[in-house]
Amino acid sequence: MEIAETYERRDQELSAIGSDPTGGMTRLLYTDVWKAGQEYVKAEMEAFGMKAQYDAVGNLFGRIEGKELPEETIMSGSHIDTVVNGGHLDGQYGVLAALTAMEYLVSTYGQPKRSMEVISLAEEEGSRFPTVFWGSKNFVGEANNQEVAEITDANGLRFVDEMRRQGFDFKAAQAKREDIKAFVEIHIEQGSVLEKEQLQVAVVNNIVGQRRYTVVLKGQANHAGTTPMGYRHDAVYGFAKICSEAIDRAKEVGDPLVLTFGKVIPKPNTVNVVPGEVEFSIDCRHTDAAALKEFTEALEVRMKEIAAEHELGIEIELWMDELPIPMDQTIVDVIESQAEKGNYKYRMMHSGAGHDSQIIAPHYPTAMIFVPSIGGISHNPAENTNIEDLIEGIKILTDTLYELAY
Amino acid sequence: MEIAETYERRDQELSAIGSDPTGGMTRLLYTDVWKAGQEYVKAEMEAFGMKAQYDAVGNLFGRIEGKELPEETIMSGSHIDTVVNGGHLDGQYGVLAALTAMEYLVSTYGQPKRSMEVISLAEEEGSRFPTVFWGSKNFVGEANNQEVAEITDANGLRFVDEMRRQGFDFKAAQAKREDIKAFVEIHIEQGSVLEKEQLQVAVVNNIVGQRRYTVVLKGQANHAGTTPMGYRHDAVYGFAKICSEAIDRAKEVGDPLVLTFGKVIPKPNTVNVVPGEVEFSIDCRHTDAAALKEFTEALEVRMKEIAAEHELGIEIELWMDELPIPMDQTIVDVIESQAEKGNYKYRMMHSGAGHDSQIIAPHYPTAMIFVPSIGGISHNPAENTNIEDLIEGIKILTDTLYELAY
Repeated sequence: MEIAETYERRDQELSAIGSDPTGGMTRLLYTDVWKAGQEYVKAEMEAFGMKAQYDAVGNLFGRIEGKELPEETIMSGSHIDTVVNGGHLDGQYGVLAALTAMEYLVSTYGQPKRSMEVISLAEEEGSRFPTVFWGSKNFVGEANNQEVAEITDANGLRFVDEMRRQGFDFKAAQAKREDIKAFVEIHIEQGSVLEKEQLQVAVVNNIVGQRRYTVVLKGQANHAGTTPMGYRHDAVYGFAKICSEAIDRAKEVGDPLVLTFGKVIPKPNTVNVVPGEVEFSIDCRHTDAAALKEFTEALEVRMKEIAAEHELGIEIELWMDELPIPMDQTIVDVIESQAEKGNYKYRMMHSGAGHDSQIIAPHYPTAMIFVPSIGGISHNPAENTNIEDLIEGIKILTDTLYELAY
Repeated sequence: MEIAETYERRDQELSAIGSDPTGGMTRLLYTDVWKAGQEYVKAEMEAFGMKAQYDAVGNLFGRIEGKELPEETIMSGSHIDTVVNGGHLDGQYGVLAALTAMEYLVSTYGQPKRSMEVISLAEEEGSRFPTVFWGSKNFVGEANNQEVAEITDANGLRFVDEMRRQGFDFKAAQAKREDIKAFVEIHIEQGSVLEKEQLQVAVVNNIVGQRRYTVVLKGQANHAGTTPMGYRHDAVYGFAKICSEAIDRAKEVGDPLVLTFGKVIPKPNTVNVVPGEVEFSIDCRHTDAAALKEFTEALEVRMKEIAAEHELGIEIELWMDELPIPMDQTIVDVIESQAEKGNYKYRMMHSGAGHDSQIIAPHYPTAMIFVPSIGGISHNPAENTNIEDLIEGIKILTDTLYELAY
């Protein structure tokens, strides 16, 4: 069994399910193409002797029973749902890499000491219904069925009806398995650090915490010609002061802090009116919870001071506050030792994006491996990684799973 | 004849034409309510003995012949078109004030030495068709018929068809009259300087020049989590630097310079994406052409420097470049001497907004009088001025016209 050939065949076959003429693909939770994707993975699992089954909600598990410690399971995988017009790697690579690594291990070394499982999670992207991590949350017994009971997609189709139409339903009880001893997820970086540093792979040691805010500065809309500078309450000027100073400060603090003012909406947003109001977003991430809190709380104070200096009202709403999720040090060490042994060009890295691993990590020892993203692009048909890097990633995953399961 | 009573009656009667339930009014060029408005003014002109007539395009003139120097005309007026859902003073006040002042003068002092005319201009606001100052440009012989030949309103109705439907047409030739010796326009300030300084009236000595730009900063859209600060090309950060520094500088320079960043449109304008592009507007005004040019050219240089420092591309388009228009010093002196004689609380002031007077001033000796705007509001049903201030304004206009015409 040859890793590259097998992976490339699977990537081509699975990519065809839900593909569109742009070269991208769309597999939204509980659609027919989504189900066809899971069924494809199930058939591939069974083809080399895995026992494959769904849980109630549609997470798919393929299992090779361990011969010495069958009650200890080493797991790897990701999700097969995509964003609308997404690429062929985000999620799909993690599922096919796990499948291919385990097939290689079984065909090369026979039955493992511990059980091995591939998990193909039902949903991670939140792209059809207003819910996210439905797959991993059900896997770890943390899903809140009430939250999805009434939600619908953009066409008004109910989550519950679509789930049942595909033959799935709520789990009878939100319980979690006790046999999982390790979970390893391989994923594209979705950033350009590895590419810029000409590295093949990253060992992920942390997933960032995030705080997101909506801020409204309230001044006074005035005629741009007849209002002297001294009489103005210019909300965009106040925004510019805040954004400029805050990003200067974030650059001083440096990695792993990131700070983004992604959305800016002035009112009335007209060339000849002094803006009376501006709504803007703040997205701040850090791998250290205390540092994230300290930076953002200082920013809140400074925003209020700047607003007061400019005689502007300010409303600050913190609507997302997620803690960083450290990866399991033992598994991180295993991955790193494989990277060193294999002379990979690698680095330690945190994940700046969210992943299923952040849901799983609080419950089971979890770690991640990144491969480079060309141009840092993801969630787009142009999402890609050199095939050599994809195969090297599968090989380091294979080595890691061997260490953990054999 | 009593000025306050006559003006208030006319304001109520004309405000009813095109009024809406919000208390505002809409009289767009060549609509039926617009024509009804002009016909109302024409009837009021004729009622006290003015000879009233339209020019080809629908500017309305009411004339009292002078007894000694009939070939020298002293003119006052403004426009009767409004913005959509506008107020009862912008334009309308200038027409009714001129009408009422001249009726008072004729009824009190009899026939003037020079001829006196009220002009009720067809269009100033540019609110129906993509053209502006159609009335005053035709009056001074500067209209470009080609520019309106093919234009339509939002409903696809052609300018030319609508003009002809109301009984008007292009002027046979763009010629200008030689008899106009003075034009005085009274208008609301549309700012809050007089109100804040508790003054009754302003003598306008200049109309600002304006430069307007559209600027596009081009960076790179990146994932807000996976892109370290050092790898970013954040267009909104670049905008914040430019806006913050430029307004700081404008405040240092001080009156009469004003600088506004009214429109800001980042792309993709999403909380979790580093903005790859931002388009913004600049509106800069000053009463001195050289100072306006110097400030904005320095700003262009600094914007390019800041863009380069932040590794952003920049496109700067200067799409409006209007020179300041000084008012006629002789008429300004006449108005000021009347203000002093009458013990008005007044000040000299420039106009930060555009007016018909800026079109007329290069052709005929022109000046303006401002009365306060409550809260600086205009182009809105809430546009208002204390009735005492409106009447004081008419009185100083009356005194000025007396000086000029009697």
